Amino acid sequence: MINSPQAGTEPYRDNTLGIEARVDDLLGRLTLREKIGQLNQRPLGWQLWQRRGPEVTLTETLDAELDRFGGLGAIYGLLRADAWSGRDWTTGADPALSAEITAMVQEQVVASSRLGIPALIVEEAPHGHQALGGTLLPTNLGSAATWRPDLLAEAFAHVGRELRARGAHIALASGLDLLRDPRWGRSEECFGEDPLLASRFTAAQVRGLRSEPGIGVVLKHFAGQGAAVGGRNGAGAPIGPRELDELHLPAVRAGIDAGAVGVMAAYNEIDGIPCVANEWLLTGLLRDQWGFGGIVMADLGAIDQLGRTTSSAVETAAVALRAGVDLSLCDEAYLSLEEAVGAGLIDEALIDRACMRVLRVKIELGLLDPPAPLPVFPTPRSADDLVAATPVLLINDDRLLPLGAPGRIAVIGPNADDRDCLLGDYVPPLPDGAGTTVLAGLRDRIGAGRIRHEAGSRLTEPLPGGLDCAVAAAEDSDLVIMVLGGSSVRHYADAFADNGAAELTGAVAATGGEGVDVAEVALPAAQQQLVEAVAATGTPIISVMIAGRPLGLQGVVDHSRALLWAGYPGPDGGRLVAELIMGDREPVGRLPVSLPRTSASLPVAYNERLGASRRYADSESSALFRFGSGLGYTTWSLGVPRNTGGPDLAGAVVSADLTNHSGREGRQIVQLYGRSRTPGLLPRRAVLLGFTAVALAAGATAEVDLRIDPYAIAALGLDAPSTGSAPAPTVVLWPSLDGPGEPPESAITMQG
Amino acid sequence: MINSPQAGTEPYRDNTLGIEARVDDLLGRLTLREKIGQLNQRPLGWQLWQRRGPEVTLTETLDAELDRFGGLGAIYGLLRADAWSGRDWTTGADPALSAEITAMVQEQVVASSRLGIPALIVEEAPHGHQALGGTLLPTNLGSAATWRPDLLAEAFAHVGRELRARGAHIALASGLDLLRDPRWGRSEECFGEDPLLASRFTAAQVRGLRSEPGIGVVLKHFAGQGAAVGGRNGAGAPIGPRELDELHLPAVRAGIDAGAVGVMAAYNEIDGIPCVANEWLLTGLLRDQWGFGGIVMADLGAIDQLGRTTSSAVETAAVALRAGVDLSLCDEAYLSLEEAVGAGLIDEALIDRACMRVLRVKIELGLLDPPAPLPVFPTPRSADDLVAATPVLLINDDRLLPLGAPGRIAVIGPNADDRDCLLGDYVPPLPDGAGTTVLAGLRDRIGAGRIRHEAGSRLTEPLPGGLDCAVAAAEDSDLVIMVLGGSSVRHYADAFADNGAAELTGAVAATGGEGVDVAEVALPAAQQQLVEAVAATGTPIISVMIAGRPLGLQGVVDHSRALLWAGYPGPDGGRLVAELIMGDREPVGRLPVSLPRTSASLPVAYNERLGASRRYADSESSALFRFGSGLGYTTWSLGVPRNTGGPDLAGAVVSADLTNHSGREGRQIVQLYGRSRTPGLLPRRAVLLGFTAVALAAGATAEVDLRIDPYAIAALGLDAPSTGSAPAPTVVLWPSLDGPGEPPESAITMQG
Repeated sequence: MINSPQAGTEPYRDNTLGIEARVDDLLGRLTLREKIGQLNQRPLGWQLWQRRGPEVTLTETLDAELDRFGGLGAIYGLLRADAWSGRDWTTGADPALSAEITAMVQEQVVASSRLGIPALIVEEAPHGHQALGGTLLPTNLGSAATWRPDLLAEAFAHVGRELRARGAHIALASGLDLLRDPRWGRSEECFGEDPLLASRFTAAQVRGLRSEPGIGVVLKHFAGQGAAVGGRNGAGAPIGPRELDELHLPAVRAGIDAGAVGVMAAYNEIDGIPCVANEWLLTGLLRDQWGFGGIVMADLGAIDQLGRTTSSAVETAAVALRAGVDLSLCDEAYLSLEEAVGAGLIDEALIDRACMRVLRVKIELGLLDPPAPLPVFPTPRSADDLVAATPVLLINDDRLLPLGAPGRIAVIGPNADDRDCLLGDYVPPLPDGAGTTVLAGLRDRIGAGRIRHEAGSRLTEPLPGGLDCAVAAAEDSDLVIMVLGGSSVRHYADAFADNGAAELTGAVAATGGEGVDVAEVALPAAQQQLVEAVAATGTPIISVMIAGRPLGLQGVVDHSRALLWAGYPGPDGGRLVAELIMGDREPVGRLPVSLPRTSASLPVAYNERLGASRRYADSESSALFRFGSGLGYTTWSLGVPRNTGGPDLAGAVVSADLTNHSGREGRQIVQLYGRSRTPGLLPRRAVLLGFTAVALAAGATAEVDLRIDPYAIAALGLDAPSTGSAPAPTVVLWPSLDGPGEPPESAITMQG
Repeated sequence: MINSPQAGTEPYRDNTLGIEARVDDLLGRLTLREKIGQLNQRPLGWQLWQRRGPEVTLTETLDAELDRFGGLGAIYGLLRADAWSGRDWTTGADPALSAEITAMVQEQVVASSRLGIPALIVEEAPHGHQALGGTLLPTNLGSAATWRPDLLAEAFAHVGRELRARGAHIALASGLDLLRDPRWGRSEECFGEDPLLASRFTAAQVRGLRSEPGIGVVLKHFAGQGAAVGGRNGAGAPIGPRELDELHLPAVRAGIDAGAVGVMAAYNEIDGIPCVANEWLLTGLLRDQWGFGGIVMADLGAIDQLGRTTSSAVETAAVALRAGVDLSLCDEAYLSLEEAVGAGLIDEALIDRACMRVLRVKIELGLLDPPAPLPVFPTPRSADDLVAATPVLLINDDRLLPLGAPGRIAVIGPNADDRDCLLGDYVPPLPDGAGTTVLAGLRDRIGAGRIRHEAGSRLTEPLPGGLDCAVAAAEDSDLVIMVLGGSSVRHYADAFADNGAAELTGAVAATGGEGVDVAEVALPAAQQQLVEAVAATGTPIISVMIAGRPLGLQGVVDHSRALLWAGYPGPDGGRLVAELIMGDREPVGRLPVSLPRTSASLPVAYNERLGASRRYADSESSALFRFGSGLGYTTWSLGVPRNTGGPDLAGAVVSADLTNHSGREGRQIVQLYGRSRTPGLLPRRAVLLGFTAVALAAGATAEVDLRIDPYAIAALGLDAPSTGSAPAPTVVLWPSLDGPGEPPESAITMQG
């Protein structure tokens, strides 16, 4: 049965009316079953169509769903291409076909809907759209190392244009999780360990994507997923409300303030309560306190997982809906919502509440406006400035870098000639020939004739004969560049859990990414043995780490004269790493996370509270490389800070003279830290309060002004429970070029 | 100025009156300064006197303090003897002198007090009184392995008699901290990782000590100290209220219900708020909700540590007093309380509130009654039954144990001939010749002629030539008994922090105890190398672990045919270990804590929530040996459980037939576990709900009845936030002889 919507005749289609009036009108026209349809997002999108060559046909997967509900809230992953979906360049939605596919599916959805309501097309875009031909950016941990949210916003504006050109509406962007335990496989998806970095970069992602009309952003994950115990994916976070508020919520606020249309309720529980069942979180905080009007989408299968706590799917559905989950994602339980209403477990008003939010987003994104042509798929845009700003130079003994006369170079290591290791998780297959490995980048830049290559080992296992070959190459060279680390590559033969995470029961080549948590974060033994064998040759070593999570690098540090941490830089990473090594560009990255020694000394975040700084009998408890640190090719000094702003913290401006003492132009990240003194609250050792990127000509001096970012305030704990007539809190402020350290004598004290 | 109290004339001295009337009367007679004196406990007790031979004289240390206040609340550690106090058998308070010393000091206190109020004499007694000649019990972790609180209560009754005979009033007993992170140096002080074990053993400690009239117990530590991040002593616990309530508070309730007169506010913060500043904890919960009328004593120096959050000592004092700290311990800040009242920071009513609690405890313990003679110091009482029940047999391949014909035995390892390693932290020096090492115990039991001994290595460092000697001994023997592990020994030359914890800046021989946290819990490399060298000889190995914390033992397991974990069993541990090995007694201990693989896979507690069970790519996340497990020399079966009690959880009685299939009498610990299904709350994998010890003759069968302990209920989370009209929670129950595992099919389901 196909119904033709009569465009423009009803108030809900009248885009001269306010959104709320349109939502109210539309909601009033829907039956209970139609409303429940708007709360469902069940079949995996890529299963809705098939492609033979350039010819696309729809499968029958969607028919039953549309018949059941008369319409549908959203469709997930229609264009997704990766090992889990099984879609590749032969079978998947390339840019040329994508808009056609979304149009075909959307047409079917609209036709099934009595009132002609389209579905939200929801796509993964954690660091670029996970679809064939999508621009791939560094994973978030790398982007955060730039300390340049402006560069990320520009890059994501292009991603938004790509998404819209293919007919998508919602980008799923991951930025809310903090990297508090590097054992977590999803470390790469975090903007580091700091709430301000996460806030600024999340906001940049949203701003960038939202600059494309018709694209909305759903932020994941809400909330506290980075606090999962043991770094185990989806495990619980037994944290308290202050820890949640100070560390894990600022980025949510920032993303919402920047215009996110939704948040994704996370897998984890907080202090026992799964996020999808957490009425305090999803309703009390998000709605009642923050006034957020967008949608809460459950993570994939998270509502069904709630079945571990209930006795039936009906009960599960009732718990999640009551808590505040508006839109499910591949769950069975939300099929039972009508039954839950019928059984009196929930009131229809709760269905209305959720449906209204879904409809509001659809209207806001223009789904019920007269159809407009999609923009054309944009030509590729260079992300070189972003990518080149991600690597962090951690060691540079005797200014070995940049390389002058390179001589004969041995490029050694499992990641040297691996393209996929550059990409991270949640990526589509690259086109043939795309991307540049570090080896290829060095050959292009230095000349293939100077370079000899040996893998030497696999990531976690020895390569038969590898050590001997590597040693021979090192002995025959003037310099070794070791390319080590990890990989989140997914192979099409891998096993996957129901939600697409790696399933460890199968063979997994990856050392990171969703589902690949590790106990020990120190460099795997096979690579460590390679480093030691090569070091024994005496040939100087420059180490390059391609890795999604912080690794324990003491064994690399001991044998390297230079060390460059490059995260997962994306497909062009190898070219830009070569340019950095040769000095065409200066390394300007700063660590967005503390690098640990081993797993045994976790946690090491710079902003743990003061009490956590006690050392162990057998090890330091501090980081091996601290948050905010990183070297360049230039030399700088920062003068004594002064407050040139107002007398209160919110209006303070910490100013200091910054000088580039070098003979070349350079860039710096000037960081502002604070430590509070709030009666009765143990302060964090330091809190990043602001930062700014500065470029200065050779020999130049400029005054740098730093303001306190509103999203950084929470971590100071100035709102701690008042203890009677105790004086107001104070805060000491100090700028730094290389991470927090202890407050110096020159720190500025202010009333909090 | 000395005032003679006129005993019996004032109401506060009339013990026919109720306590509250006496407290009110006494409080009304005190000046502000005198009241504040009752809130102070400042000089370290052992510094108040000197001994030359049998002659004791008072120092001038107390004079200024008594002059300042006209009396004093309490005196800490008057009789303490250990490396920190520097008191030994030459300079310390032996049993014969102790009563005289307390009487001399008390006389001075009373004389200085206008109303003749004595001080509380407060002594450390975590596993026996930390004074010369005090009975030493296993550390708490060992006692918990007995699963026999009744044995501990009997042993502590004797400790209470010793304390009273010396003139002490308050025993500081540590049992509240849960062992959630084995990196913590104080792991040995915990009754394991489970709230019910901690509750039952804490209550047993209190019951035992309180059976001696005039002895009160202050429980440490309140609260959540075992949740400290990274296992770092005194670090914060960023946990939420549910985690606190379910795991960390039941033992506090149990100890209070058993008659504790006070709790000690811990060093750590909970979710940012230091315990000594936590008004919600110390007043809202403890007083207003629980109705507790005893004292809150701060941990040693904890109030002054609060100075990290305030701008002055006056402010510090005001914050702590307002929060609810009644009695300081070696803090400067409480000297400023009068100034704080004068400055209007606190009202005198808060001074009264605290003083009233101190006075109440003094009156309750008889300090203001007519003096009565002290009991005589009791003759030693054997704790053999307790000590022998602590070791847990973890491996016994081919029933190697008990040893039949022992043959030639090599006893190897750093703990084989070390007496002090048996004792743990918080112990006085032993008398000359006291105690039995494992080596000595084996020689006594088996015959010295059969035994050859080599240390082989030190605890954390190789012993020069040690490996060769150990290998030679093993090669020349039919069997090796390796005695490995750790030690919390304190040497008189060690460095100590202000609170007596080990100071890691100095040389520390210990691998455990307060202040000696470690990053890596796996057996130290030196010992592991020793194990491997000895194993290479092919001589069968029985391993005995003397260790205060859970160690990662994979490397021992790989090479041992039997493995006995013995905690810190106390001075007679060596004798009883030998008896167990020879089969004079059966090992009956069960693990009170999960033994991890390495630090990298922490946490491993059996009662983490379901979500934490996900494995790592490079390791299991589970324990190597699970909570509740342990072998004996007998074979048992447990029949299908049935509920023979009431229909509701509180009245349920889980009954099952237990059979001893062996040819000898045997003992078992029957454990009852539950898992809840509470809508919207992720359950813990299992919760220990009850347990009982059973002895059965060879071949006998008996019905065992298990009831649900009220202190175990909290961890089920049945009080989770109601989600509308969702059905009531259910709980599945199952008995077990060897730890929780997964609920079996025979588990009983009940309404929660």
